[in-house]
Amino acid sequence: MSQVFAGIEAGGTKWVCMIANHPGDIYATTRFPTSDPEETIGNAIEFIKSQTHKPGDLKGLGIGSFGPLDLNRESATYGFLTTTPKPGWANTDLISPFHEAFNLPIGFDTDVNAAALGEQRWGAGRGLSDFIYLTVGTGIGGAALANGKLIHGMIHPEMGHTRIPHDWERDPFPGVCPYHGDCLEGLATGPAVQARWNQPAEDLPPEHPAWQLEANYLALGITNLIATLSPQRIILGGGVMDQEHLFPMIRIKVRELLGNYITAQEILETNEQYIVPPSLGSQAGVLGAIALAQQAAKA
Amino acid sequence: MSQVFAGIEAGGTKWVCMIANHPGDIYATTRFPTSDPEETIGNAIEFIKSQTHKPGDLKGLGIGSFGPLDLNRESATYGFLTTTPKPGWANTDLISPFHEAFNLPIGFDTDVNAAALGEQRWGAGRGLSDFIYLTVGTGIGGAALANGKLIHGMIHPEMGHTRIPHDWERDPFPGVCPYHGDCLEGLATGPAVQARWNQPAEDLPPEHPAWQLEANYLALGITNLIATLSPQRIILGGGVMDQEHLFPMIRIKVRELLGNYITAQEILETNEQYIVPPSLGSQAGVLGAIALAQQAAKA
Repeated sequence: MSQVFAGIEAGGTKWVCMIANHPGDIYATTRFPTSDPEETIGNAIEFIKSQTHKPGDLKGLGIGSFGPLDLNRESATYGFLTTTPKPGWANTDLISPFHEAFNLPIGFDTDVNAAALGEQRWGAGRGLSDFIYLTVGTGIGGAALANGKLIHGMIHPEMGHTRIPHDWERDPFPGVCPYHGDCLEGLATGPAVQARWNQPAEDLPPEHPAWQLEANYLALGITNLIATLSPQRIILGGGVMDQEHLFPMIRIKVRELLGNYITAQEILETNEQYIVPPSLGSQAGVLGAIALAQQAAKA
Repeated sequence: MSQVFAGIEAGGTKWVCMIANHPGDIYATTRFPTSDPEETIGNAIEFIKSQTHKPGDLKGLGIGSFGPLDLNRESATYGFLTTTPKPGWANTDLISPFHEAFNLPIGFDTDVNAAALGEQRWGAGRGLSDFIYLTVGTGIGGAALANGKLIHGMIHPEMGHTRIPHDWERDPFPGVCPYHGDCLEGLATGPAVQARWNQPAEDLPPEHPAWQLEANYLALGITNLIATLSPQRIILGGGVMDQEHLFPMIRIKVRELLGNYITAQEILETNEQYIVPPSLGSQAGVLGAIALAQQAAKA
């Protein structure tokens, strides 16, 4: 082992840690549930130490975390989780414990920005300058690249919290977002599907009306992203998108919603290439964290 | 006169043409209504010729046009208007007639991208890497800069055609967009206000309920743009925004819609600096076309 990188996908439900160079050169991976900050961060540090026997082997560390995060390097709370509703995690410093444990360059970004970076480097975003990575799972998060670079802006995108039309007559469910009720995340995240139908999303059969409703909401959110960013491709990841039958339903609905106004060949003719799953599958996030580590080591 | 540039803001209602170097060095300006393509383009060519007596003086030409446009330089129809509902203008070549009249570098982009570029160069976007310019007039169009650069993506943004929640009970008006009915443009553009209330928007007094409804719709669209792009500032231009009382109404509603989830100091404390009119006023578009001309001359 020489010149490897550590990547951490710090999710609200589970953390995934990896020692690797790239998708074809992975040394070790582990995953564990997200408990309290001290224990969870401790587990990650222990794993990395146990897998890199000669400290000099490790060249950088990358963390892609659930948010919202403080990504402003000028800020006193750079590297902190900020207003997350997840109990115990608000105002958690995610960088300092790793700085203390490993004297290494650390790349830090949102989990979904990391996943987008992974897909740009090794996956479905290769060769594209402008694409979106949307993850639909416990929450809904989005990342966008424009002109080849991740968009951060003032803080970072929070695409799950966009508002879409909510047909209250057809769907009287009020939504689960503690901040906005029926924003996209409130209506279409995994827990929303479970709460609306009183059973876990993964137990609902493909012909259940839950899925057409879900496809409609996601298509509304995606159509808004297309109108706002004009992406060359949209990558849809996250646990809910493991339901592969959602892809064709979403593609049809997006085309319908665009209403012949935006008529690029990419959308009209090769719809299956326009809205796609991540090539790196469930490893997009943690491999993206490896890409963050490599960026940090180079900087 | 030496080393000047020609700028054309090609709008669906009127065209504005200018010979200038920058906002403090303007030689001539004219505006005329948009009639058919031949006459309108002819008027622009005639104005530019009449104002630049020594042809060598003119170093470049910039065109910021209403859309949708083909901005793909590899395309056979680069520089064309594509699917516009404006009678007579679909599939109009906006570049070739100017190439034939003036053998000069031509910069070409959407009218709203040009306006954003103008504001970045000389206006309310100076010093910012990430901001949005939204124009609310005959139509609604949006431009975004991220990491200092205009976002074009696959085609170009069409932010007016995003979908927002439409409260049918309070507002049974179906919207005026010929493609989508009640998209943001369908609900909140100048002609939508006029059709909903049966009188021109500019005749409605500030206390008329039209304005709170208008502010609510625009705030929904803007909140979605904030969640998607995390801009450092939002510049609101266009004829409808000449109603200055809309600004405080929109600021309050945006803050309410963000619902304490996105809590940057810029939004919470200096709201008046976050959502602002264009510094260049109604000249943002045509000065942006001058900036396009300068970019083209440099390239």
